[in-house]
Amino acid sequence: MKLVTYKAHVEAPARLGVIEDGIVVDVAGFGEAVGLDLPDRMLDFIDLGPVAVRQLRNALHTADGDWGNALALPVETVKLLAPIPRPRKNIFGIGLNYLDHITESAKALDTDDALPKEPVVFSKPPTAVVGPGDPVRHDASMTQQLDWEVELAVIIGTTASQTKRENALAHVFGYSVMIDISARDNRRAGQWIFSKGMDSYAPFGPCIVTADEIPDPQQLDLWLTVNGVEKQRSNTAKMLFKVDELISDVSRGITLEPGDIIASGTPEGVGAGRDPQEWLWPGDVMEAHVEGIGTIRHPVINATEFK
Amino acid sequence: MKLVTYKAHVEAPARLGVIEDGIVVDVAGFGEAVGLDLPDRMLDFIDLGPVAVRQLRNALHTADGDWGNALALPVETVKLLAPIPRPRKNIFGIGLNYLDHITESAKALDTDDALPKEPVVFSKPPTAVVGPGDPVRHDASMTQQLDWEVELAVIIGTTASQTKRENALAHVFGYSVMIDISARDNRRAGQWIFSKGMDSYAPFGPCIVTADEIPDPQQLDLWLTVNGVEKQRSNTAKMLFKVDELISDVSRGITLEPGDIIASGTPEGVGAGRDPQEWLWPGDVMEAHVEGIGTIRHPVINATEFK
Repeated sequence: MKLVTYKAHVEAPARLGVIEDGIVVDVAGFGEAVGLDLPDRMLDFIDLGPVAVRQLRNALHTADGDWGNALALPVETVKLLAPIPRPRKNIFGIGLNYLDHITESAKALDTDDALPKEPVVFSKPPTAVVGPGDPVRHDASMTQQLDWEVELAVIIGTTASQTKRENALAHVFGYSVMIDISARDNRRAGQWIFSKGMDSYAPFGPCIVTADEIPDPQQLDLWLTVNGVEKQRSNTAKMLFKVDELISDVSRGITLEPGDIIASGTPEGVGAGRDPQEWLWPGDVMEAHVEGIGTIRHPVINATEFK
Repeated sequence: MKLVTYKAHVEAPARLGVIEDGIVVDVAGFGEAVGLDLPDRMLDFIDLGPVAVRQLRNALHTADGDWGNALALPVETVKLLAPIPRPRKNIFGIGLNYLDHITESAKALDTDDALPKEPVVFSKPPTAVVGPGDPVRHDASMTQQLDWEVELAVIIGTTASQTKRENALAHVFGYSVMIDISARDNRRAGQWIFSKGMDSYAPFGPCIVTADEIPDPQQLDLWLTVNGVEKQRSNTAKMLFKVDELISDVSRGITLEPGDIIASGTPEGVGAGRDPQEWLWPGDVMEAHVEGIGTIRHPVINATEFK
């Protein structure tokens, strides 16, 4: 299933939806129509555990489109928000997790060209999240080196602590797309949270595809364009640490919880690694895509023009 | 006021309390008794803004001890939790913010001995928080270099974005004590979240002292002992970046929100900086104190013995 958080119109409250054949079906409303008690927020749905995913999927197949006009809207007519508009903690980011990105980073930035022995973890605050179409804010007083990084985002479904690699994928609720926006000139003593954590630096969406529809997250094409020109193209097969390793590794020390988000790293082709280097400026438009999930499109605006 | 989160007994729900003369007064219950609508959770109280602090303080002074026996318990008889048991995002940590700690870190760790030009920000997940008396878990499969860092914790009261230094302290709700536990052998490509973010690595308490009682946060003694032996002793006057600068700086790029926590850095005397180096082991007991706030006491246990 493709789950979204959406508003039926600009003034409407945010609701949990599921996309079926281009139609957004309101999950709580649909549940009511078919006698299932389902929530209207993504995090509440994730908290219900895998049984809720199965119930909703089965009910959608059984109901066969019979869910009433009021609950179903063409996806083009609704406003999509980030699937989890407000995460309950910082997003876990993973640095240096595609081989050719490690090489370009070592040339252009201050990172090592040796392969990391363990996943390189950092974080982005919940305040960085923006939804599909929302602008990324370029603050010229802060950065002249704003960069893009397309990533597969992993949404945790059930608590994972000291989880073995072979059990790790069972803890995944689903997958999404995130751009790990990075102001390369705002690293501090090597720490990345400020350079990657500013407001609007985590474009996220357009949906969460439940894990049952992506049995192998390590064979997904992903790409990013700026102003229609392809800048990144790779496949999640090229991750140094696979999704199951990331979950297993982080959970050795840090308990992962339902709704946690892991941005699993970016492939080569970032602006810092290009010759000459390229950066994002107001007026640019990014599109980022992960196979089987979808595409998010984000304009860059001057931060002073943000309302 | 000294605000706490407490349980009247082990099975009781967590409640917001205020300490008056060694007595914990239940805030919501007291409010009810005097006709004020006050919440039973710290974050909800912070969300009410400065007016709630004034109302509660005034009402306590007016009521003059007349708040009914059922609502008031000696502080020794209750279980104190972390003042904010579950922060809404990662704690903002500040590295290398006391001059002599910068020197000892450059000698013992991989940091620069030049003064940082801007605050060095990192984060600790909400899952790292433990309350007064709770054990810090030593996982021998993860670390042989577990270290202590006593810090003044700053609790944000009102949203701060692009906040000037001269206005910054007006955004502070209050102050508390945090130990920034650090597994020095778990840094990854220079990133600290894993080494400082594991479960139980953020002892926090015993209370939040509201900002009106600490008009100048830059003249507070702070110290830490291990097994009764003093390891750290300094004064917040020695911070490189003062609390108002930290708020102003972070808020340039990252919006700070009510309930956010900034752990403002540690002075010299950490285990890594000693000769020979010293580390925490199961059986050790830390006490950490900040003047005017209080003391937290935390045993270190073998992680395998944690229930």
